[in-house]
Amino acid sequence: MGNNINTQPMPGFMELLPNQQIAFNKMLDKINEVYKLYGFRPIETPILERAEVLLTKSGGETEKQIYQFQKGDNNIAMRFDLTVPLARYVAQYQNDLVFPFKIGNIGKVYRGEKPQAGRFREFYQCDADIIGRDELDISFDAEIISLMYTILTGLGFDKFKIKINNRKVMSGFFQSLDMDSPADILRILDKLDRLKREDIVFELKELKIDDEKIDKIFEFIETKDDIIEKLKEFDIQNEIYWQGVEELEYVDNRVKDLSIDEENYEIDLGLSRGLDYYTGTVYETFLTDYPEFGSIYSGGRYDNLSSYYTDNRFPGVGCSIGLTRLFDCLLKENQIDTTQQTSTNVLIVGMEGFDTYALELGNRLRGFGINTEVLFQLKGSFKYADRLNIPYVVVIGEDEIESSKYTLKEMASGEQVMLEQEELIAKLRGNI
Amino acid sequence: MGNNINTQPMPGFMELLPNQQIAFNKMLDKINEVYKLYGFRPIETPILERAEVLLTKSGGETEKQIYQFQKGDNNIAMRFDLTVPLARYVAQYQNDLVFPFKIGNIGKVYRGEKPQAGRFREFYQCDADIIGRDELDISFDAEIISLMYTILTGLGFDKFKIKINNRKVMSGFFQSLDMDSPADILRILDKLDRLKREDIVFELKELKIDDEKIDKIFEFIETKDDIIEKLKEFDIQNEIYWQGVEELEYVDNRVKDLSIDEENYEIDLGLSRGLDYYTGTVYETFLTDYPEFGSIYSGGRYDNLSSYYTDNRFPGVGCSIGLTRLFDCLLKENQIDTTQQTSTNVLIVGMEGFDTYALELGNRLRGFGINTEVLFQLKGSFKYADRLNIPYVVVIGEDEIESSKYTLKEMASGEQVMLEQEELIAKLRGNI
Repeated sequence: MGNNINTQPMPGFMELLPNQQIAFNKMLDKINEVYKLYGFRPIETPILERAEVLLTKSGGETEKQIYQFQKGDNNIAMRFDLTVPLARYVAQYQNDLVFPFKIGNIGKVYRGEKPQAGRFREFYQCDADIIGRDELDISFDAEIISLMYTILTGLGFDKFKIKINNRKVMSGFFQSLDMDSPADILRILDKLDRLKREDIVFELKELKIDDEKIDKIFEFIETKDDIIEKLKEFDIQNEIYWQGVEELEYVDNRVKDLSIDEENYEIDLGLSRGLDYYTGTVYETFLTDYPEFGSIYSGGRYDNLSSYYTDNRFPGVGCSIGLTRLFDCLLKENQIDTTQQTSTNVLIVGMEGFDTYALELGNRLRGFGINTEVLFQLKGSFKYADRLNIPYVVVIGEDEIESSKYTLKEMASGEQVMLEQEELIAKLRGNI
Repeated sequence: MGNNINTQPMPGFMELLPNQQIAFNKMLDKINEVYKLYGFRPIETPILERAEVLLTKSGGETEKQIYQFQKGDNNIAMRFDLTVPLARYVAQYQNDLVFPFKIGNIGKVYRGEKPQAGRFREFYQCDADIIGRDELDISFDAEIISLMYTILTGLGFDKFKIKINNRKVMSGFFQSLDMDSPADILRILDKLDRLKREDIVFELKELKIDDEKIDKIFEFIETKDDIIEKLKEFDIQNEIYWQGVEELEYVDNRVKDLSIDEENYEIDLGLSRGLDYYTGTVYETFLTDYPEFGSIYSGGRYDNLSSYYTDNRFPGVGCSIGLTRLFDCLLKENQIDTTQQTSTNVLIVGMEGFDTYALELGNRLRGFGINTEVLFQLKGSFKYADRLNIPYVVVIGEDEIESSKYTLKEMASGEQVMLEQEELIAKLRGNI
């Protein structure tokens, strides 16, 4: 008896119908395929960690959002991203891993946020990171862009822009103006796409930055065209700045080597990334037709991944897609093809008394890699094939067995052809 | 600074090195591939559910093991299997789903057990189920065996035995002897592989079953050879019994149609499956060389999947592998090939000043689907390729660019060949 239990998933938890799930899984498969193409190695960390492992670096807002509980003597928490567990993993297995350690890391993460549109409490994060031991060449910052580009085009996007910047350029510039809290300034500038200019100015003033310097900041971050050349022309006496310019130029040149379309890539000095731990290159990606999605693919360079867990130094660079939210946004915009309802290529229907023949044929077709279902009842079978968009149906009864020929019906056109078993297999293999 | 935080995963949580993860993921991929071959549609339910959804049917031991917590006003629990969330899913989306609904459902489940060898608190369950609306043909009970067989052989097993029985045969037989608690008897008989016969006898006596009947039970469950024929010869006046015999015979005949090796399949009247909700066919699978693993692939027929959530009837049949435990057992027995350390097929090394050429070549090879890594430093590169078992290395420097020829080194043999770019691509494509 139904007990009036709420059978909906909880708010903030995405649950899909099979055809939507097929579309979602295709995106996951594509990301995994590109990871392999670039030699990123798979790892999988537990969803549950000792709370002390997760709570180390976060604090504040993040900590409030963590799902935490006590079980026996253990204080347990659900991971809220893949980076902190990766930091633990690298510290734990540092002597078994081969560096540079290229990691493709896909999994669900959890945030106990107040449910609101477009925010998920359970979502897939698809991370790729390259971790060095003691050092990591700047060339890997360009490789991450190449990976992001290949994944985005692989997922079918063409109208997107990967934007990059370099934190050292920014910090060095701020320092040259005698502003000593570059991290605070970057955190404010990170809101450029959400706040009005006057609100940004207001927040900068709260940091005791005067009007003249605020103008200089805006002039700087709004630099357009030949940005590298212009950066080189600035009369700035700051080592960090020039180190950043050199890195930015190197990465920019490597991106040109990769012949990435100008449509899909640019340097943007207004790009900040709010997170404190980035120290060099930073990335964000926007869909040209959907700026309201915000950055869909972001990341950056960090100096030391595992500092909380080990005294050894592991610099890295990485990028991350929040796939659940992206899929949800695209689904709502009707940008996801959900016509495929099943993997099945052919449905075999055995008339009464012909179960054996139907099963044998089904078994044979599967042996050739043809995705096959078998039903033992004519009633409802065509409706089933129709609702699931199964391309072909074969009915097996007395006529078929006597004549050793099968009637193959193509559901879309309604056309029927009589085929011997070998012909049937050849025809269906051509349509795998 | 390292803070002496324990960086091991918690006990009962499997965490693998990348080469082990590659082997594990291959098993997952194979199972997914076979699901597609049989037309099982993917679904994915959340790991977190309202506690009231999960606690409905379980009670007792299961309830104690559930990870539960409060967040805001919500009483939240982590799923302990995939079947209960599936029951909720089918109730929720019953009007959108196409029946028979064939589901391939792979995901992590959680049990807060006391950690002990071979027991996991987080583990992958790989379920396949076929759910009918109001009714579900007995032929699907045979399809599940076919699926299990294809998955097991696909995973590389040859020495295994899928055992089947039918609950109706057992219950009918017990009823014919005037024993009215068949479920209790089945629960005791389920311990046959773990307990001594005298302990089973002791427990049966506690149900007030007399010696004569206990002898009859043992005689029955130990029936060997031509079991169906022998079942038909028994003089039993019980409708359920004969219904069970008919089902068992039908399934047995269909398995014969599928030409499954006798080595890999048998009827075993001693097979019970402890779980209450099975009502017809039951399955268990044992590895011939590792009986101590217990049943590695089990399942059965159930009358009504979603009775707790809806008044409509959804009979089903399914099977489940606990992949984490199976993998862990096989790993400990050195039965898992962990030689593959990366997907990378070729490593390109750009000498100083040849970054552009190295990147362009890497990009080109990836365009042909060749899994490629690029490094920009000769130092350490061959060691890197060696440790990761990367089959080929190409070094790019002045000589290579001047002569337009690349030196391809095959790491295993140490052999080097000079190739033009097109030859290089052709050679590597042959080795994808």
